Amino acid sequence: MVLARLQQVAAHLTGQLVQHHPFDPLTTEEIAAAVAIVRKEHEGLFFNAITLWEPRKEEMLKWLSSPKTSPKPRRVADVVAIGRGSRVYDGLVDLDDGRIVQWELTEGVQPLITMEDLQVVESVVRKDPKVIEQCGILGISEQDMHKVYCDPWTIGYDERFGSGVRLQQALMYYRPHPDDSQYTYPLDFCPIYNSDTQEIVHIDIPEVRRQLNQAPPINYHAAAIEKEGGYRTDLKPINVTQPSGVSFTLSNRILHWQNWTLHIGFNYREGLVLSNITFTDKETVRPLFYRLSLAEMVVPYGNPTHPHQRKHAFDLGEYGGGYMTNSLTHGCDCKGEISYLDAAFVSRSGEPQTIKNAICIHEEDAGILFKHTDFRDNSSTTTRARKLLVSQIFTAANYEYCVYWIFHQDGTIQLEIKLTGILNTYAMNPGEDVGPWGTEVYPGVNAHNHQHLFCLRLDPNIDGQANTVFQVDAVAAEEEVGSEGNKYGNAFYAKKTKMETMSTGMSDYEGATSRTWDMCNPNKLNPYSKKPVSYKLVSREVPRLLPKEGSLVWKRAGFARHAVHVTRYDDAQLHPAGRHVPQTSGDPSQGLPAWIAANPEGSLDNTDVVLWHTFGLTHFPSPEDYPVMPAEPMTVLLRPRNFFTQNPCLDVPPSHSTTPSQMAVGRGGTGGIVSDLSRLAFGGKEKGGSDEV
Amino acid sequence: MVLARLQQVAAHLTGQLVQHHPFDPLTTEEIAAAVAIVRKEHEGLFFNAITLWEPRKEEMLKWLSSPKTSPKPRRVADVVAIGRGSRVYDGLVDLDDGRIVQWELTEGVQPLITMEDLQVVESVVRKDPKVIEQCGILGISEQDMHKVYCDPWTIGYDERFGSGVRLQQALMYYRPHPDDSQYTYPLDFCPIYNSDTQEIVHIDIPEVRRQLNQAPPINYHAAAIEKEGGYRTDLKPINVTQPSGVSFTLSNRILHWQNWTLHIGFNYREGLVLSNITFTDKETVRPLFYRLSLAEMVVPYGNPTHPHQRKHAFDLGEYGGGYMTNSLTHGCDCKGEISYLDAAFVSRSGEPQTIKNAICIHEEDAGILFKHTDFRDNSSTTTRARKLLVSQIFTAANYEYCVYWIFHQDGTIQLEIKLTGILNTYAMNPGEDVGPWGTEVYPGVNAHNHQHLFCLRLDPNIDGQANTVFQVDAVAAEEEVGSEGNKYGNAFYAKKTKMETMSTGMSDYEGATSRTWDMCNPNKLNPYSKKPVSYKLVSREVPRLLPKEGSLVWKRAGFARHAVHVTRYDDAQLHPAGRHVPQTSGDPSQGLPAWIAANPEGSLDNTDVVLWHTFGLTHFPSPEDYPVMPAEPMTVLLRPRNFFTQNPCLDVPPSHSTTPSQMAVGRGGTGGIVSDLSRLAFGGKEKGGSDEV
Repeated sequence: MVLARLQQVAAHLTGQLVQHHPFDPLTTEEIAAAVAIVRKEHEGLFFNAITLWEPRKEEMLKWLSSPKTSPKPRRVADVVAIGRGSRVYDGLVDLDDGRIVQWELTEGVQPLITMEDLQVVESVVRKDPKVIEQCGILGISEQDMHKVYCDPWTIGYDERFGSGVRLQQALMYYRPHPDDSQYTYPLDFCPIYNSDTQEIVHIDIPEVRRQLNQAPPINYHAAAIEKEGGYRTDLKPINVTQPSGVSFTLSNRILHWQNWTLHIGFNYREGLVLSNITFTDKETVRPLFYRLSLAEMVVPYGNPTHPHQRKHAFDLGEYGGGYMTNSLTHGCDCKGEISYLDAAFVSRSGEPQTIKNAICIHEEDAGILFKHTDFRDNSSTTTRARKLLVSQIFTAANYEYCVYWIFHQDGTIQLEIKLTGILNTYAMNPGEDVGPWGTEVYPGVNAHNHQHLFCLRLDPNIDGQANTVFQVDAVAAEEEVGSEGNKYGNAFYAKKTKMETMSTGMSDYEGATSRTWDMCNPNKLNPYSKKPVSYKLVSREVPRLLPKEGSLVWKRAGFARHAVHVTRYDDAQLHPAGRHVPQTSGDPSQGLPAWIAANPEGSLDNTDVVLWHTFGLTHFPSPEDYPVMPAEPMTVLLRPRNFFTQNPCLDVPPSHSTTPSQMAVGRGGTGGIVSDLSRLAFGGKEKGGSDEV
Repeated sequence: MVLARLQQVAAHLTGQLVQHHPFDPLTTEEIAAAVAIVRKEHEGLFFNAITLWEPRKEEMLKWLSSPKTSPKPRRVADVVAIGRGSRVYDGLVDLDDGRIVQWELTEGVQPLITMEDLQVVESVVRKDPKVIEQCGILGISEQDMHKVYCDPWTIGYDERFGSGVRLQQALMYYRPHPDDSQYTYPLDFCPIYNSDTQEIVHIDIPEVRRQLNQAPPINYHAAAIEKEGGYRTDLKPINVTQPSGVSFTLSNRILHWQNWTLHIGFNYREGLVLSNITFTDKETVRPLFYRLSLAEMVVPYGNPTHPHQRKHAFDLGEYGGGYMTNSLTHGCDCKGEISYLDAAFVSRSGEPQTIKNAICIHEEDAGILFKHTDFRDNSSTTTRARKLLVSQIFTAANYEYCVYWIFHQDGTIQLEIKLTGILNTYAMNPGEDVGPWGTEVYPGVNAHNHQHLFCLRLDPNIDGQANTVFQVDAVAAEEEVGSEGNKYGNAFYAKKTKMETMSTGMSDYEGATSRTWDMCNPNKLNPYSKKPVSYKLVSREVPRLLPKEGSLVWKRAGFARHAVHVTRYDDAQLHPAGRHVPQTSGDPSQGLPAWIAANPEGSLDNTDVVLWHTFGLTHFPSPEDYPVMPAEPMTVLLRPRNFFTQNPCLDVPPSHSTTPSQMAVGRGGTGGIVSDLSRLAFGGKEKGGSDEV
């Protein structure tokens, strides 16, 4: 008893003394400290972002390889602040020293729109006389202005206004009742809001006016469902329980599960950041990825009529996948035993803020891991799989993005994104032809064609930093049918094309050749196959960027021009559409195109490289997507190829296993393995809570 | 009490009097009856297959629409029998009348290889003096011939032997111990077996001999894992329980679940056959598909050296996806409450045989169905999804194919196939260069490149039989950037190309345009979008057939030349590589190419059509796939587009739902919905067995 108590006390003390891992996001205390340090020297600022300035890689790798003998990277805050007159300051604050180490006024840029920036516009819009006038034209009286809503996007880029003033475009809607979905009642005009002066500076009014929708509301809340006959009653519960707890351990933010080890970071911009991902191969800890994150997105809409060209949200660069993340306390989004991590940000006024349960960590059963039956004697092995999910869900105004980083026992890393939420909609008149650019998803509701293009930043570390990327195509042999080398015409092989330099290191998707990309360590060959150890990027949802070459979106979203870009590693290159994305003109293009232009001959061969992968989907809406979209999943895989010398999950206990020898002894065998679950499945009712794997 | 007893008796009697649904597979009694009827007229036959001759569609549709007033389709058995001298008979037996209605000697064809055909070869091989001699050359003594194994594939096609004699090629292996995987010890020669005379008629011996592998065994049975340190002990159980049972009902073979109704059939060839699939949309039962099945497969290997060109198994047409199906009694392959259906076949000697638990039916939780949060007040709804899986697993010698037909609440049908099992392997000498055609996955083990190409037969019935198929491409508008119609260059749309006639109704995959195919009913427009009601085929794993045009595989597997073929419906057209596939030469091509050639101008517009979709993957093996492959999943989706007037699953009870009004009343709201599970997830430990949905 005394010992146990002492152990508790010791654990408690250790907990308090926990040192920050250099990858850990800034804590609320660190954010407060950064604000205080800035305030000592600069007054009258609003804070846009304070986040971890990640350790420089060279320094970090040294520390990771020998934390006891190498200096620990300092804690540094990366600060974006805004002064009156839309003046933007970029700074670095050394938290260990308590001093500003860099501070710059950055001209001609606009940092992202925070949740607070989003929240404030609606009240301004409702009081603006010109907006009230426009609402009046559509039949909304001044007393009903509290029924007017807006999604106040950044303006993106509008050549009439440039980049000097911080602007938002208010996509306008109406709610007959506060619980009605506003997306059924879009308004046809678009106020432009000055975020600095907090006033409406312009209204875009279409040449053809669209009336306020007269269709009845369509909703999915309980009262609406009740009116249509109520919730269905024919679903019986499926319970997922983990009576002995989870199979992972989380030490501070370092996760251990089934040979995997990784650090779980999070920032306001990218949301989840996974660092220093390793897989323990027998006794050896083998590095796989230095850092993985969703780095950027663009959602171009396909209606060419002004001002819809402005609808091409860079959800991460313009709003922040971290800032928009859901607190998962408001409804359980996963089943089983769930662990959560919070996220800390700075408010506009400099207060630290916490989103509770921003990150979800849990395990799931994953069906069959492997199985084989010998047709001779029915001896067989069936082994079930388990997966570990690290996830977040963010709400970008109307849409929801559910992001799942999934780790599999076989060494595969899967990024699954589920799209749900509500379509962005625009007004239409009864009987109006919406052309090929949209769909009437409900009477009077025009949902425009759009794409969701995600840019995944992969910093491979395949058994070390020196890596090379190859494009891999499945192709027929060149030799003709009937020739000596290909008599029956069946020869085919994997054609590998090396990504040589920055200017040539880009590649489009090719479905017909099942194109993939290998991230290899050319210095280390698999002892059996004699091929370089590698991880393969397998991605099948890879539409072309449909806005044309030279278009506004093409210029602003340079990362989306190709499915894959490879660059030499640079600590400063995290954001493929630029550090500050709102109101970039694309002349010249920020981010990836600029980095490539700066070093076109930079070699990508056997060096520290970063792979930028743009994938996603093109969405032609249909009524099934309304009034809320059934989740549409998308998957990207990172698969070990020639990395291990054998299937790395053979040691997962099978649910059933018999050998020929066992089968020979008697029907069903002796000495075979049958898990409780398999036994029970055929023996009658299942017991609750038994120790089944 | 008396009433209850009477009800039991009535139920029992009804059970006995159950009439077969016309889609039901033949029962063991019906198979026995068919055999007896044939035997009355024909002697000395072996049975290859006896299966349901499905009702003609016209007759069936009449009966389905008014079962009380239309004649019920007769029960007819489709019989394939083999006499001495490889003489093949195709017949139809009317079971209602008890008579043969059709009986033909079919020249120049070979029916598929049954499990019995597979089983018998090994014992012949072991005793054959020429095989013993070859084994001796590789150092295997005559006393060790019981350690020699073979996978006796059909010969496929070998121009030296033609199609007149029934032949198998014995892929040869060795097992040092009965529990060792033979695939580590391939032998380099290949005996040809005459299935009629049961003797070895030829041996293919390579010019360059490969020695017997000297590497130690690599296995995944318990003893092997024990030697490497044992099974991992860090997996805690995840239990899936359904304390109130399942949410579906199975009436004979008709399944009802969440608006879905379908008939579950099964045959020796295709395995699972799903018929008359409907979705109840509010009160209306709406037909979707008349019939869905995997109709054919081909697995071409990419090594051009003789005789490896013969390795291109048509797993369904040459062996039978039903015949090879696993009995799921030998290990539980799913979690939760599982229902099973058996499968009945005929044996070679005419005995009915049953595979217990051939089909698995169960539900699974499926993550988030839809979710939206209002960023203004955090009012939100989260609804969890459920899916229903109808599945089978078949073992094609070395490989396992796990086939899951998955029904979703949002109207989506998903076909998921997981590939697992063991690579087909060939011998190699130490240090041998295997070229680009294979990979040394373990010392001395050469796994050849191969493709798995599945042909999915879709018989759409989208609100009726008159359907049209469109190819749909996501493309940029034609107008140049800066032009009046596309000033900002962001215009894009869904370009639809009608499949007009049999000879033009084919289409390749195009990844860059995210190509899909719509099965439309052009006679019925969605009332909101004014677009034809449709189901969209979404498939992203669509490699090209890599054996070249004019090659042996290209000729024999005509269905695999394009991702999509559309044909006019014909009752006789079920098998896209032909009714009898083994030893077809492809001169001329059977199945799809022949049907198209017979009716090139046949219109596909607004008529009863069938869509044949070939999809799959190209597999360049790596050591991770050995000694048993982690399951690799592939998915094809059939999604409602413009079919419903709204999201069809809004009535699924949410796990959490609050409205703005509820949020306004107080933090967390009043009157919102929070399921037990959501409540528990944040309130402490979960209770077992509570009624959570």
